[in-house]
Amino acid sequence: MRDRLHTVAVVGLGLIGSSIARGARTYGLAENLVAVDREPAVLERVRALRLADHATGSLAEGVAGADLVILCVPVGAIGAVAAELAPHLKPGAILSDVGSVKGSVVAAVMPHLKSDNAFVPAHPVAGTEYSGPDSGFATLFQNRWCILTPPEGTEPEAVAAVTAFWEGLGAIVETMSPEHHDLVLAITSHVPHLIAYNIVGTAADLETVTQSEVIKFSAGGFRDFTRIAASDPTMWRDVFLTNKDAVLEMLGRFNEDLAALTKAIRWGDGDALFDLFSRTRAIRKGIVAMGQETAEADFGRARPDGTGAGR
Amino acid sequence: MRDRLHTVAVVGLGLIGSSIARGARTYGLAENLVAVDREPAVLERVRALRLADHATGSLAEGVAGADLVILCVPVGAIGAVAAELAPHLKPGAILSDVGSVKGSVVAAVMPHLKSDNAFVPAHPVAGTEYSGPDSGFATLFQNRWCILTPPEGTEPEAVAAVTAFWEGLGAIVETMSPEHHDLVLAITSHVPHLIAYNIVGTAADLETVTQSEVIKFSAGGFRDFTRIAASDPTMWRDVFLTNKDAVLEMLGRFNEDLAALTKAIRWGDGDALFDLFSRTRAIRKGIVAMGQETAEADFGRARPDGTGAGR
Repeated sequence: MRDRLHTVAVVGLGLIGSSIARGARTYGLAENLVAVDREPAVLERVRALRLADHATGSLAEGVAGADLVILCVPVGAIGAVAAELAPHLKPGAILSDVGSVKGSVVAAVMPHLKSDNAFVPAHPVAGTEYSGPDSGFATLFQNRWCILTPPEGTEPEAVAAVTAFWEGLGAIVETMSPEHHDLVLAITSHVPHLIAYNIVGTAADLETVTQSEVIKFSAGGFRDFTRIAASDPTMWRDVFLTNKDAVLEMLGRFNEDLAALTKAIRWGDGDALFDLFSRTRAIRKGIVAMGQETAEADFGRARPDGTGAGR
Repeated sequence: MRDRLHTVAVVGLGLIGSSIARGARTYGLAENLVAVDREPAVLERVRALRLADHATGSLAEGVAGADLVILCVPVGAIGAVAAELAPHLKPGAILSDVGSVKGSVVAAVMPHLKSDNAFVPAHPVAGTEYSGPDSGFATLFQNRWCILTPPEGTEPEAVAAVTAFWEGLGAIVETMSPEHHDLVLAITSHVPHLIAYNIVGTAADLETVTQSEVIKFSAGGFRDFTRIAASDPTMWRDVFLTNKDAVLEMLGRFNEDLAALTKAIRWGDGDALFDLFSRTRAIRKGIVAMGQETAEADFGRARPDGTGAGR
């Protein structure tokens, strides 16, 4: 298996792509690492940071000798990039990606693929609010899930090779259908981003409360939302355009629940409020227990004098 | 001024009350610190942690000799507690609180106060998701705003004394009307908490996605919301019951904006999405620039091997 991964090409050296490159180097997952990016400014940083053995702006050149090609571009661009590079993949090469949406990606990529290349779609559920080649780091995927959604009939060896690669980066690999992936991520990632973007926009547009007041008094809860509302706009625009159905479905549920909660506030139904506010603690405990979140108060944000809180 | 604060009584030793007690001790803000709590279990922790010079379950006894009494109980209980302690305040004693809602607190407290006692309502905009006497720490208020909303005609010396006390705890003090406070906090704190509680509830109730999946894949954004949805249920029930009008007003704006965003998704209006997603970054930059948030990626959550990210 391992000899198939002599050469790994990463296409798109943003936060995720550059983290994969750093991780592949740190954990020895590729003999030869190729970075492909269309942006001259990104290529320059890739070279300065020595993120790959070879860096090029040419897709054809970059993927030609690769055993594994990982597309780390916004999901809206994956189809076009796949169309352009597919003819240049060598026989037996595996194509993968890191897109946050899987149904539309499978549909956009598969028609371009030659029969002797496998496509193993992947989604590492990890990231930060920063973008670009300088923001990545080798441990980004440690103890994070990576979801694979191989189309039916995908060569098992190809799935095994991609699984081994992600496990090498420290991720836990799980396999599911593209449709189920898109539903799960709609509630655990897409709708949370949408309502974070939305409330930050609402706060910015108020005329009764100034922007300066919103900023000053943000420690009451608002600032937590601004982190994910600072994520890459292009990536997130594409997520909502390509996972429309699942997002609208989950947003419908969210709105129904919010309407019930609004009614409880309007009618002064303290028991209904208390009941929900008590239930929600259990979910966080589960997330902390599973190692997907810190138990430190306030996410462990640094304190002025370094003293710690209880718990 | 300082001699008026010989004795400070803190009523309610939860996260905020116990942080005030710790800070008053650490920064030398009171000669004599009295802790009052009705819960025997809390009093026991207060004594074990030596949070005060004197700890009692009796309001009458606890406030009798105090120059400043700070109510740190849920806003729904402040009126009843004020009614019970008001007759026992010594002449010239100042009453204050830390409630997250100010209009209803002023209305609930003022009728009980004797003419020789001043009420200086206060709201330190700080906290964590943990509750109880063990969760507090002395530096909680460092570089955080504390909003005072003194009723018209409040003795200026009383306002100055409470200002000095909070500045002693490291806070930055600002004064505004109770009505404006309630509007500002509705958008910077109350509605964010409400939608966080709401989405965690929505995710818990899905039948198409399991709770285990929600927990596993929470690093995609959802886990950020679970922190504030783990806050104290009693405190937050009371906030929504007592700041109903401002919360419903801000929730109305949030819903209008979300409807527009939903429509943009349904119709595939990528430009509208990109425009909002780009605008929201500026607000976070302002919050970081003002020292109300860390610039570290992912709130500075600890990484497996301690390596840092770019930026």
